[in-house]
Amino acid sequence: MPISDAAIKSAELLALERKYCSFGDTVHYLDPPKVFVSCEGSTLHDEQGTPYLDLQMWYSAASFGYRNPRLADALKRQLGRLPQLACQYLHAEKVELAARIAQYCEKRFGVKGRVQFNVGGSQAIEDSLKIVRNYTGRNLMFAFMGGYHGRTLGASAITSSYRYRRRYGHFGDRASFIFYPYCFRCMYGLKRETCELYCEDQFEKLFESEYHSVWDSRAEVSEYGAFYIEPVQGTGGYVIPPKEYFVRLKQACEKRKILIVDDEVQMGFYRTGKFWAVEHLGITPDIIVFGKALTNGLNPLSGIWAREELITPEIFPPGSTHSTFSSNTLGTAVGLETLKMLEEEDYEKLVNEKGAYFLAGLRELQTRHPGIIGDVNGLGLALRIEVCKEDGITPDRKLTDRIFSEGLKGDMEAGGCKYGLVLDVGGYHKNVFTLSPAFTITRQEMDLAVELLDQLFRRCRAQ
Amino acid sequence: MPISDAAIKSAELLALERKYCSFGDTVHYLDPPKVFVSCEGSTLHDEQGTPYLDLQMWYSAASFGYRNPRLADALKRQLGRLPQLACQYLHAEKVELAARIAQYCEKRFGVKGRVQFNVGGSQAIEDSLKIVRNYTGRNLMFAFMGGYHGRTLGASAITSSYRYRRRYGHFGDRASFIFYPYCFRCMYGLKRETCELYCEDQFEKLFESEYHSVWDSRAEVSEYGAFYIEPVQGTGGYVIPPKEYFVRLKQACEKRKILIVDDEVQMGFYRTGKFWAVEHLGITPDIIVFGKALTNGLNPLSGIWAREELITPEIFPPGSTHSTFSSNTLGTAVGLETLKMLEEEDYEKLVNEKGAYFLAGLRELQTRHPGIIGDVNGLGLALRIEVCKEDGITPDRKLTDRIFSEGLKGDMEAGGCKYGLVLDVGGYHKNVFTLSPAFTITRQEMDLAVELLDQLFRRCRAQ
Amino acid sequence: MPISDAAIKSAELLALERKYCSFGDTVHYLDPPKVFVSCEGSTLHDEQGTPYLDLQMWYSAASFGYRNPRLADALKRQLGRLPQLACQYLHAEKVELAARIAQYCEKRFGVKGRVQFNVGGSQAIEDSLKIVRNYTGRNLMFAFMGGYHGRTLGASAITSSYRYRRRYGHFGDRASFIFYPYCFRCMYGLKRETCELYCEDQFEKLFESEYHSVWDSRAEVSEYGAFYIEPVQGTGGYVIPPKEYFVRLKQACEKRKILIVDDEVQMGFYRTGKFWAVEHLGITPDIIVFGKALTNGLNPLSGIWAREELITPEIFPPGSTHSTFSSNTLGTAVGLETLKMLEEEDYEKLVNEKGAYFLAGLRELQTRHPGIIGDVNGLGLALRIEVCKEDGITPDRKLTDRIFSEGLKGDMEAGGCKYGLVLDVGGYHKNVFTLSPAFTITRQEMDLAVELLDQLFRRCRAQ
Amino acid sequence: MPISDAAIKSAELLALERKYCSFGDTVHYLDPPKVFVSCEGSTLHDEQGTPYLDLQMWYSAASFGYRNPRLADALKRQLGRLPQLACQYLHAEKVELAARIAQYCEKRFGVKGRVQFNVGGSQAIEDSLKIVRNYTGRNLMFAFMGGYHGRTLGASAITSSYRYRRRYGHFGDRASFIFYPYCFRCMYGLKRETCELYCEDQFEKLFESEYHSVWDSRAEVSEYGAFYIEPVQGTGGYVIPPKEYFVRLKQACEKRKILIVDDEVQMGFYRTGKFWAVEHLGITPDIIVFGKALTNGLNPLSGIWAREELITPEIFPPGSTHSTFSSNTLGTAVGLETLKMLEEEDYEKLVNEKGAYFLAGLRELQTRHPGIIGDVNGLGLALRIEVCKEDGITPDRKLTDRIFSEGLKGDMEAGGCKYGLVLDVGGYHKNVFTLSPAFTITRQEMDLAVELLDQLFRRCRAQ
Repeated sequence: MPISDAAIKSAELLALERKYCSFGDTVHYLDPPKVFVSCEGSTLHDEQGTPYLDLQMWYSAASFGYRNPRLADALKRQLGRLPQLACQYLHAEKVELAARIAQYCEKRFGVKGRVQFNVGGSQAIEDSLKIVRNYTGRNLMFAFMGGYHGRTLGASAITSSYRYRRRYGHFGDRASFIFYPYCFRCMYGLKRETCELYCEDQFEKLFESEYHSVWDSRAEVSEYGAFYIEPVQGTGGYVIPPKEYFVRLKQACEKRKILIVDDEVQMGFYRTGKFWAVEHLGITPDIIVFGKALTNGLNPLSGIWAREELITPEIFPPGSTHSTFSSNTLGTAVGLETLKMLEEEDYEKLVNEKGAYFLAGLRELQTRHPGIIGDVNGLGLALRIEVCKEDGITPDRKLTDRIFSEGLKGDMEAGGCKYGLVLDVGGYHKNVFTLSPAFTITRQEMDLAVELLDQLFRRCRAQ
Repeated sequence: MPISDAAIKSAELLALERKYCSFGDTVHYLDPPKVFVSCEGSTLHDEQGTPYLDLQMWYSAASFGYRNPRLADALKRQLGRLPQLACQYLHAEKVELAARIAQYCEKRFGVKGRVQFNVGGSQAIEDSLKIVRNYTGRNLMFAFMGGYHGRTLGASAITSSYRYRRRYGHFGDRASFIFYPYCFRCMYGLKRETCELYCEDQFEKLFESEYHSVWDSRAEVSEYGAFYIEPVQGTGGYVIPPKEYFVRLKQACEKRKILIVDDEVQMGFYRTGKFWAVEHLGITPDIIVFGKALTNGLNPLSGIWAREELITPEIFPPGSTHSTFSSNTLGTAVGLETLKMLEEEDYEKLVNEKGAYFLAGLRELQTRHPGIIGDVNGLGLALRIEVCKEDGITPDRKLTDRIFSEGLKGDMEAGGCKYGLVLDVGGYHKNVFTLSPAFTITRQEMDLAVELLDQLFRRCRAQ
Repeated sequence: MPISDAAIKSAELLALERKYCSFGDTVHYLDPPKVFVSCEGSTLHDEQGTPYLDLQMWYSAASFGYRNPRLADALKRQLGRLPQLACQYLHAEKVELAARIAQYCEKRFGVKGRVQFNVGGSQAIEDSLKIVRNYTGRNLMFAFMGGYHGRTLGASAITSSYRYRRRYGHFGDRASFIFYPYCFRCMYGLKRETCELYCEDQFEKLFESEYHSVWDSRAEVSEYGAFYIEPVQGTGGYVIPPKEYFVRLKQACEKRKILIVDDEVQMGFYRTGKFWAVEHLGITPDIIVFGKALTNGLNPLSGIWAREELITPEIFPPGSTHSTFSSNTLGTAVGLETLKMLEEEDYEKLVNEKGAYFLAGLRELQTRHPGIIGDVNGLGLALRIEVCKEDGITPDRKLTDRIFSEGLKGDMEAGGCKYGLVLDVGGYHKNVFTLSPAFTITRQEMDLAVELLDQLFRRCRAQ
Repeated sequence: MPISDAAIKSAELLALERKYCSFGDTVHYLDPPKVFVSCEGSTLHDEQGTPYLDLQMWYSAASFGYRNPRLADALKRQLGRLPQLACQYLHAEKVELAARIAQYCEKRFGVKGRVQFNVGGSQAIEDSLKIVRNYTGRNLMFAFMGGYHGRTLGASAITSSYRYRRRYGHFGDRASFIFYPYCFRCMYGLKRETCELYCEDQFEKLFESEYHSVWDSRAEVSEYGAFYIEPVQGTGGYVIPPKEYFVRLKQACEKRKILIVDDEVQMGFYRTGKFWAVEHLGITPDIIVFGKALTNGLNPLSGIWAREELITPEIFPPGSTHSTFSSNTLGTAVGLETLKMLEEEDYEKLVNEKGAYFLAGLRELQTRHPGIIGDVNGLGLALRIEVCKEDGITPDRKLTDRIFSEGLKGDMEAGGCKYGLVLDVGGYHKNVFTLSPAFTITRQEMDLAVELLDQLFRRCRAQ
């Protein structure tokens, strides 16, 4: 297609979009929004055919690369046999997928449990809330500042950002939000080396007296049923906690019969170099919520795993919940293929090696932009670049936005080719690039990424 | 596959399922659950290869028939080009699909509006709740007894059945539920011919005095932001209301600035013989929620259309909500193909003709089981059979269950072949077969359906 | 005091009031508010010394007449001995008062129970809500349209008028309001003679199907913990229900383990000719809430009686609630004297005789204003006059307001004296005079009341 | 009365109480409860005539001494003239009392405002919640750990102790509780001399990012409408904050349009040596809530003062709230007399001098029980003794309870007379004696108090 045609088509599309599409989803963060027409591996293509190296991969939903052929085949196979089935009937892929996940958890944590599917991370979170509310008899939850669990009303109530609730009236089940061990910006101004997990101590102090508001010390009952955690914060800016924190948090919660719900929607399925990110933390959660990468983005399948005690049919009987597409055949078929892939190749090794290589590149980049790149860190292929003022700490949201937008112009050059760069902005101050590159990314692509980032930092700092 | 192998595989599958799958979704209504392995057109096949004529088609999600080739091709095309894309970027199919739906509404209702996508009907309902809460400043909703809008916590609060809430603690946004014009079981014991819509009068009486609890007559403000309706009740038992009811209800609501949210998740896209079921009612809703049949079950894509005033970017700006898979490329591509199909063929004619034929068959069946089949009715291809005791009115839930279970045994014979029959049970008393056959169903298949139903009624009444 | 001085003083007072007093209470319903300076028996006096015959007696708080000497003496005795004592210690009057009330209930209903005090009807209602929520584990209540239980946030949630909630955001515990058997304005347009308590049937229909929203028919559990009733509606307009209604309602509730909380704040202590108004209804409530007349208005003492099972120390242990003034010595001393009075004289006879005499006078008045006085009724000395248009049914709020205001002008003449008349307006449409004259009112005063009412009706109808 | 008769009477009383009284109020903290029969000045008398020096004076409700003759006369005067009047009419004392309070606030804070009355501190708190919810449009409040604002459902939601909520289901308006500057038990383990109000910094950090959960930084709107404070914590253990804290807190709140509601129910009317305790803090609150000492315990009158902007009739119009006894004539008459007393004598000087003398005695006592008396402090006549283990910091609840119980035995001797001592226990760990002696207490009585306390500490430590 000649460029002029593409341009005409694009203009028409944007005009239609401006007229008929809600802006209420996230599209209009960039105005006009960027249009893409094809994808492959780590690359998106716009209407002019320019390649954009994608470092966010649909917020980690496409971990196995765009248009992964094996997963596409799995989808097509199911499409040719049983693409539709009401969820009150069984099909093999659902059962096998559930079994593999539950068996993995049993092997890894030594705990029996069951799996239930749904579509979209938020609905899986809602299912987890139902399980917690049913089992504990309590509506209220602890969750973390910086935490993100979705945008249904129930999920918004346990998601930290007030901006996500402000328009929607009163939230009677609003969580109580606890400071996350975000050591680069410690709320207490401490350093990890010497803090002795002061922040976790602060949480435990809530249980020292009934007047601290959450604990009846006579009845030994907490007002809160569960603590929702992300082992690495996603939207919060790929914040990597000190491991020891969660060991102590888990003990503190267990002592007060507060469940731990582990949200792995963004970090599960090896994003951090472990099947579940929570495995880095040395604890066993009571419930795990997963989604996104399970189907590599080919289907919104999500789900939960819960300890037998919470989800056993006596406690959570048939009809406790329902969703038309909950264990849809296409999604479970792709998910099953994903699980097979994860068992056949050593993704722990692969992801950690690539992650280490990329992190080294980013650290090198940091030395070229001292202060401006306040923090660089990574766990597996979940990586972060925190953009600051020259002082190395004050968040520079404007610069972050400029870099993000410039990357999408698709006008950089490297090795004689034109490139764009697809980034994602997160963080408490919207000054963090949260990188979740494809597991299929190559060393050359990682080198290219660092090169393009360097160009963007230079270009935008000069503005 | 020889039967013995199938049996072994099935037994293994059921054992795995019993161990690793939650029973909390609906699977275990039948115990053991029924396993299916393939599908085509109006037919599901079990592991022995027995065909089951399916009269519920995944609760109307697969209206265009199982394995519809045109829609499968649309999915494969997108799979080959752009199967994944973060929803903060644009792709053509999303825009074109939104535009077609909004243009249809504009043409049909004379009202401008916008479309927003999500996955799963419940999440679309949650989006609609956000729009209502944002626009009206109110948390509380009216909804109908017998109404069903989903199972997230927010959707459960506006869904009538208390059983769906009981396990989950307090619902601070519980709707106020109003009697639906379910004339076969009129709550007031009246007959439609002479009632003069007494039930609608009763609703309006709530606004006669501030002491009737919902209306401040001085400030002229209602405590309720919107009224959630189903033009034909789905889970409630395919209840078809008298059309005039909603004309009056709409006027009553408009006068008190109460929005109408029209849930078309089950009835939209020609199930009732109109694009939107609400078109039968002669009213224009403020918000339409849709899902299921939009992709013929190939993707959980759902969405809402809202009047411009409610969803305009000034009122509902970027970032108001978000969902990773909200306008996923695979779903929007299939949805777009569905819309094209709907424009190319006269589905209004097709559905109404087939519906009339099937309804005639069911009415004939009713004459063979007087009393026992208390009511038969239909709108387009949404049909109902209400199973009663001999008195023609007392619900017979046990007989309904037996018929449902027997149908799934797959041991009936017709024309020398073995058949099963897939039904779905709904209704306030779980005594209604809610039929939503494929639009591709043939006259022969409808005849077969009536024949099999007759066999089942005879067999089960004799037990 | 010469009139001019009084006028000056009054003007100063009104100026101060306009500047420093909240208008948020009900004083400014009349503008400027009416000032009174003394009282005695059934009469209030304004600054000019004009007597106003009072037919509302502080909404039934001063049933035993203004400045009742015996009760004043009881107050003074306690004032001279133990006017203050922290409620964590005991004093004799509290115990004796509680015992007399509990013994009365035991004798009358055959049910053991306990009493707990507080101040103000709303706080007693809040205590009853705590007992219901603790015992049933449920936050939600049924209550009646037209019902009034107070204005704290908790009491407002179960009080029908939305106007009382509108300004105060979301009420997550809002009751479900049921039509009260207000036969003069039957919501169903029926006549008591032939209705067969259709309205009660309608309530029971809510339990016929889980889809009717309040009942899980599998678990046999209701979403609602208690039904709050007034045996005669107070603020709702002294609506007197058909007795049989509550016998059936009680059975319906008992069957579903829904408690009955009987609000006697306005009608208790013989206002209706029985100790508790509920005694007219032939049912035993689970909780009784009382206040107002207990101290004849000399102290805000209120309280609850609850069945032993609900309030026994194991279930409702020390510290379950608290209020500094809950069982204050002055209030309990006066309350105890009230109870002694009630035991010493036959108030059932006295109140019913006076009530019958007054009602006869009002019925005669009705014949003089046919249509305009749409309804007249009474139970004991709780009487109502419903003001309508000439058609005898359309509420005439304006005329009601005029009569109310004219009465407060204090410019009527009767028997050569100048008089005012103090009335109170209630009812769903603010068109009902709710009369609660002092038990000490004389026949002459009742004759005078009818005469003054007649003057007011004539004067205001002519305007 | 001979002792044996008293004993019989007492036994009968306790038997009646055990049978007919709820234990749900606080009486049964001591078992059997203590009975008192008369009072005067600083002394309560039991049935044997033994005097008990009272250091808590009904939680500060009887600040002006038991049976204060001037206030008793004011009550009797009103009793003889206008002891009853419906609150929709005006009487002079209400207006004059409101005016004096509002005028005081205007003079002291330079801010115009209005007063509204009610009965009981909790109901005044409920009124303040209504004003905040109406003005800010928000349901949620900040409040302090250790804070106490009452026991209605609304007040319990903003009162820190979870024990007060646990039995009563879900609280959809639960406050967010912030650490109070309780320096003796600093949650952060800091010392006031060097902390630089670290705790206030922690509060402000909540507004640094929308992800800290309470603040939308784009819209500049907080999720919380007001911050409820006690200038000195009451039930929390008479905790005296560093003054500078509140200056900064006020600025922080003002900046985010969060109102300050000052609960003076226990500390108002000179308990701390200032008319309002908040005057110590150098800030102007938006709303003041008061009660208790206003009538010296002779009537439950309470009330609020609010800034004109919040309570002006346009914003908070007639009928916004209501309570039968809200501005009852007896209560307002006594309150008016209290205000006159406060204007006629220099209570600031009197209370501070007596407070200093008593505090010196307590400090001396502390030297006799080092460690065991971990902290002694006071502001005016609000004084605290914190009972610890020998380490001077670990709370010793058991010793506190023993001392409290022993004091009530009435078997101590001093100066040849038998005495009891009435104490009150508060604090986050129930190990604090909160002393609020009468303003009429003499130096001899204070000396006696220290002597009796010393006896109790010695006796109980020896056990």
